[in-house]
Amino acid sequence: MEVVPRSTILGYPESYMSIMIQEIEEQPATLERTWREEFRRIERFRRVLERRRPSLIVLVARGTSDNAALFGRYLLEMTTGIPVSLAAPSLLTLYHAPMRWEGALVVGVSQSGESTDTNLFLEAAGKGGALTVGVTNEAASSITRLVDEVFLVRAGKERSVAATKTYTGQLLMMYLLAYALGAPLDPRRLERLPALAARALRLKPAISRLAERYRYMDHAVVVGRGLNYANAFEFSLKLMETCYVVAERFSGADFLHGPIALVERAFPVFLFAPPGPTWEATRAILEKLRGLEAETVVISDAGNTPSFAYATRSIRVPGPIPATPGSPADLFTPIPYIVPAQLFAATLAAQKGLNPDRPRTLTKITKTV
Amino acid sequence: MEVVPRSTILGYPESYMSIMIQEIEEQPATLERTWREEFRRIERFRRVLERRRPSLIVLVARGTSDNAALFGRYLLEMTTGIPVSLAAPSLLTLYHAPMRWEGALVVGVSQSGESTDTNLFLEAAGKGGALTVGVTNEAASSITRLVDEVFLVRAGKERSVAATKTYTGQLLMMYLLAYALGAPLDPRRLERLPALAARALRLKPAISRLAERYRYMDHAVVVGRGLNYANAFEFSLKLMETCYVVAERFSGADFLHGPIALVERAFPVFLFAPPGPTWEATRAILEKLRGLEAETVVISDAGNTPSFAYATRSIRVPGPIPATPGSPADLFTPIPYIVPAQLFAATLAAQKGLNPDRPRTLTKITKTV
Repeated sequence: MEVVPRSTILGYPESYMSIMIQEIEEQPATLERTWREEFRRIERFRRVLERRRPSLIVLVARGTSDNAALFGRYLLEMTTGIPVSLAAPSLLTLYHAPMRWEGALVVGVSQSGESTDTNLFLEAAGKGGALTVGVTNEAASSITRLVDEVFLVRAGKERSVAATKTYTGQLLMMYLLAYALGAPLDPRRLERLPALAARALRLKPAISRLAERYRYMDHAVVVGRGLNYANAFEFSLKLMETCYVVAERFSGADFLHGPIALVERAFPVFLFAPPGPTWEATRAILEKLRGLEAETVVISDAGNTPSFAYATRSIRVPGPIPATPGSPADLFTPIPYIVPAQLFAATLAAQKGLNPDRPRTLTKITKTV
Repeated sequence: MEVVPRSTILGYPESYMSIMIQEIEEQPATLERTWREEFRRIERFRRVLERRRPSLIVLVARGTSDNAALFGRYLLEMTTGIPVSLAAPSLLTLYHAPMRWEGALVVGVSQSGESTDTNLFLEAAGKGGALTVGVTNEAASSITRLVDEVFLVRAGKERSVAATKTYTGQLLMMYLLAYALGAPLDPRRLERLPALAARALRLKPAISRLAERYRYMDHAVVVGRGLNYANAFEFSLKLMETCYVVAERFSGADFLHGPIALVERAFPVFLFAPPGPTWEATRAILEKLRGLEAETVVISDAGNTPSFAYATRSIRVPGPIPATPGSPADLFTPIPYIVPAQLFAATLAAQKGLNPDRPRTLTKITKTV
């Protein structure tokens, strides 16, 4: 006898195609558009920065955009050697502390362009002499009037409260900013990122089957490291927002410094396990988790097949993911690796009978100071 | 009929006085010693820094020490105006990325002084021309041989795996470093911090009664902002390490950008709610949580009595906590506010029948790269 799933009003995939899923599927097209329409402007900005090289980069953002900024924190420092700091906006917005801005490049990231604290921070930085950049999806938003340079994610209106296509657009923009700052990134490689996202979308049926296993999961840990550290934050945020799973997120190193005590038999841990510099450290965690009989789900690709042997379940991102000679092997993994995680959250939400497009309590634009 | 608790082999407080509790109670004495033995050396370092003012401060640490560094990230930037960055050690230890160190003050924080990644980072920074500082509890440890200046927390051997007295010692050291960097902090105020910790310890019986209510809590959120943001990380780490509670931690602003969707009726949220610049933003969260019928526990003091009206349960830190004219009212709250949180975790662990001194899976020194 075949078990036939019964549709419910919200039950995915039988009766409801969430906007979140639709927006996840738009990503190859939105990334392609971002690339096509912004690259020339990035080339121009590269020439500006040649004359005005910053001594410090400060990134300011909230929510999903802050996760993209966390990726930028790693990518920009790694590829340019310029120190990067993630802003603590409350120092300005609540404590009104005096801050130094000379020589700084301050980059605000905001899907809506209406994030109060991000905008206040950019405004103060601009007045204080910093070169300011805004990365947003909304061409007519407040942020565009506050900064020296605007780069548009051009993902089209994002209708689901859970951000997906703007996140990958912001990641692409971080690569482009790194390029503008003189990073040795080959534009021909960057141009292929939309195709990597398209290939990752092929995982949709497999992810849908996989997610069913976690129908009753109510807590989890997500682990990432280095360039995929931000993805651990983003995956866990999606699990919290759309599935109401209490999802912790840690760098692999921080996880071992205390939180691993949480893990008992069958405790679910999701790990980004790309090839390259972070693999050895991630392997050590997987071995430890195997000893604890945890449930592990590894996200990796054919460039790191050994990772699959350690996991209870695997998400195999179609590859190969091209590595530039002289660059770390995980350099281009963050965009294709987050796609199955987005699909997982959207699918799991539906299987839990939840509407991922309208998480309880949330609205699309959150204003905080 | 009175309900008499039955002792178990691990049941606190009837039969087992954990080392963690003992070390929590040592804090007034350990802070007093740190102050007495290190202040003169800090005065000397202040004169060194007058001649060599850094243009950037980088903090590097793991685990509980990283939470103290997070406090330093706020305090140092707020009181000195010098930009502060929390290091991403993997950029150096795994990716071997070239980094710029000229003009930087790099501060490593490590209880044991044997944290591999922290030490590798300090070594590279020193070779690259940074001024390096080590903050450790162990006078004979590796970190002391790698840095230009060592400051000792002098908390005495920490025997419990869960760090408590070294955390508050590291917080005190951050105040002292801010002072050394020219922050307008009155040493006579800093000298009173051990007495504030002593007063907070009076909460022990009340916390023990309170913790019983959470005997079956298996997940929670901890919220803090600004100077108490680090305390939210530290409280949640203690809940994870010693009670195996899946405890998330957020800044109040980040909490509203997504994770608040987790909160349903009776969901437990612990909030640091000091008087001062962060109160209005925290009040807005408490109002929202009341609407969601969440279970809220507020940690505050007599300087902010309105906060108690919003909470399901309150932890009233004995006050008043002195505010320096011209400084934010929460400036000296982090040490007295973490003490009841430490007591809560240690007590709850015992009531859950767990040994807080020996969390499963963990050892006292964790080496990661």
